[in-house]
Amino acid sequence: FGKTRKTVTKYESKSHELLTKGGFIDQVASGIFNFLPLGKRVLSKIENIIREEMNNLGAQEILMPILHPKNLWLQTSRWQNVDVLFKTKSQYGQEYALAPTHEETITPLAKRFIKSYNDLPKALYHITAKFRDEPRPKSGILRGREFLMKDLYSFHINQNDLVNFYQKVIQAYVKIFSRCGLNDIKITEASGGSFTKKHSHEFNVLTLAGEVNLIYCSACKFAQNEEIINLNKFRSCPKCEKKLMLGKAIEVGNIFDLETKFSDAFDLKFVDKNGQEKKVWMGCYGIGISRLMGAVVEVKNDDKGIIWPKNIAPFQIHLVGLDFNDSSIVSFANEVYHLLVKKYKNEVLFDDRDNVSNGEKLADSDLIGIPLRIVVSRKNKDKLEIRKREKDTIDLIALSQLSNLT
Amino acid sequence: FGKTRKTVTKYESKSHELLTKGGFIDQVASGIFNFLPLGKRVLSKIENIIREEMNNLGAQEILMPILHPKNLWLQTSRWQNVDVLFKTKSQYGQEYALAPTHEETITPLAKRFIKSYNDLPKALYHITAKFRDEPRPKSGILRGREFLMKDLYSFHINQNDLVNFYQKVIQAYVKIFSRCGLNDIKITEASGGSFTKKHSHEFNVLTLAGEVNLIYCSACKFAQNEEIINLNKFRSCPKCEKKLMLGKAIEVGNIFDLETKFSDAFDLKFVDKNGQEKKVWMGCYGIGISRLMGAVVEVKNDDKGIIWPKNIAPFQIHLVGLDFNDSSIVSFANEVYHLLVKKYKNEVLFDDRDNVSNGEKLADSDLIGIPLRIVVSRKNKDKLEIRKREKDTIDLIALSQLSNLT
Repeated sequence: FGKTRKTVTKYESKSHELLTKGGFIDQVASGIFNFLPLGKRVLSKIENIIREEMNNLGAQEILMPILHPKNLWLQTSRWQNVDVLFKTKSQYGQEYALAPTHEETITPLAKRFIKSYNDLPKALYHITAKFRDEPRPKSGILRGREFLMKDLYSFHINQNDLVNFYQKVIQAYVKIFSRCGLNDIKITEASGGSFTKKHSHEFNVLTLAGEVNLIYCSACKFAQNEEIINLNKFRSCPKCEKKLMLGKAIEVGNIFDLETKFSDAFDLKFVDKNGQEKKVWMGCYGIGISRLMGAVVEVKNDDKGIIWPKNIAPFQIHLVGLDFNDSSIVSFANEVYHLLVKKYKNEVLFDDRDNVSNGEKLADSDLIGIPLRIVVSRKNKDKLEIRKREKDTIDLIALSQLSNLT
Repeated sequence: FGKTRKTVTKYESKSHELLTKGGFIDQVASGIFNFLPLGKRVLSKIENIIREEMNNLGAQEILMPILHPKNLWLQTSRWQNVDVLFKTKSQYGQEYALAPTHEETITPLAKRFIKSYNDLPKALYHITAKFRDEPRPKSGILRGREFLMKDLYSFHINQNDLVNFYQKVIQAYVKIFSRCGLNDIKITEASGGSFTKKHSHEFNVLTLAGEVNLIYCSACKFAQNEEIINLNKFRSCPKCEKKLMLGKAIEVGNIFDLETKFSDAFDLKFVDKNGQEKKVWMGCYGIGISRLMGAVVEVKNDDKGIIWPKNIAPFQIHLVGLDFNDSSIVSFANEVYHLLVKKYKNEVLFDDRDNVSNGEKLADSDLIGIPLRIVVSRKNKDKLEIRKREKDTIDLIALSQLSNLT
């Protein structure tokens, strides 16, 4: 499995095309995908980076359900008001929402455990499938009806404590995206920005496959959603006065200061140091994990295929054996494989197919985009050809130098 | 979080009670649960044991969706025939099943990648939430409407190859359950056993909370579902003639020889060595992960609480600081904590609450059931009190002996 595909289909985006051809994903229906072994490995690596950074924030991992009882969504008036809500009904009467977000379960949960200021602050996150009844699911895993998401919720004694934590999450998000290979994340304040006191930030990746229209500064970090900004007012960057640019972007993360909106809906209170009952302040913080995977591919590719950033590459090393009709090469390749596995454990993908041409194997390895390719072939004799996917440089090394790979 | 609960509620089973009181799970609605930090850690440990054993079988991990298009389920006639099927409909017309099992997606997926005998055998598994519209969800996480499951599917050139793999899976399952602390798994052949050639095995844990009526031998490994066996015929064990017992059990795993049932439905064929088209043989193999967690608690507890098997305990060490009104004890406890964390990383739970009585802390640690408890207290002075939860033995050791803990 993880076999690459050659058939010509109409693809909805570059990432849809490369991830499908490369054997990472497989479409089940519009907006609904299988993640194949290569794709699942990428997802798991992204998840683990997110887990590490969430844990560094002091957040704890939980798992909330997908089926949400109707009454919880009635309590926030979102049963009728959220137009992308999938609903299902038991034969035995109960109605459920398929959760697109989890305020409706996290707030009642918090209410059962948060009683006093001693119990605050608290931060909980989970990683699970989410559902949105999108009118036009498109662009492969960039906008699906079912997708994988991390959401974090935080609980605080007051706005000040919430704002402090909120700022830490911004830093954690920048770090997460950077570890996933995205160093140029455009952070916007979409819901009014400096024009309102309410906080809300979006984390955007510039790419033509995106659906967000972004105004951003060519020099500094200023960025704003086109819907928000008054273009006539700002001919140049309001922060540094350099030239403003216009571009499409994908939103891969968003964070909201919920203030006491959901605490009000579920009457979530705590007793403060003076014995007074007060509303709990909440924040929520999302990252679209499967979308992030797609966004990385949108910006990390060339005409040959994907160029995975090291930290989320499905494997670190792609060992490609050519000329496999020659048994001495097969046994040499196997020797190299066993040496590599000793050091790199399960981070080595070995293309030992004997029913595929040399050209096809090399093209597949470009398409799959693993950072380091090692070719064993008749031409290279007892040397190994090392190719870095990103820089497209080639070196020949001896077997004895294998342990010095970086 | 992970705070224990004192309120008296009506519980549906021992595991429901202990897991709720211990802060592992939290009921959202009938048959639907939150997994709190402690519970999520147990789930993750079970998942990782399963992953290791699946990978040892040569199976690859994938991730299939929860939303299954109606047409796939019509193709197997299960859209109407599976009575526990949850269904949902998009506002834009498409109908979906919420998958209770994944033959309807794995078979079309296999069809896109399996073409020739070169592509076989193949084994793929995934871990995801599943849904069953149970008439009476009950016993906490033992029978839910939403639950976590691992399923493995295998594909073979013929029945013989399938049967060989099937036998390996039985061994892998025994190992998985044993690693989870369940050494006395009763394996039954429910769908006729030796009376038919079709293979199907269930893996059962004996406990009063179970719903399966099991006949099993007091001496050998013979076990059979009561519905299947002819009790009048078998007064003693048909294998070893020793006494037969009757007991309730929970089914935590099941495996099926699907033969070519789904290959027929989706026309899944391969070309054999002689160029002939043949049907692919399939097997499927499930483990209820959240149910397994509940089943372990059903059999591993005493009147004080849970007794977690080491491999799936939420933490390995529970450091409990008593007499926290004494600042010298607080600082000693912190010193111990930092020493422990150096060696045991994130496997140390530290009860440093200063608003809870000593008695409550000790009772909570019994309830939560972590294998090793270390108590720092006024009474113990500069010694550490080591208590093994399972054996209920207590030792006093010096700080210098801390590195010798097992």
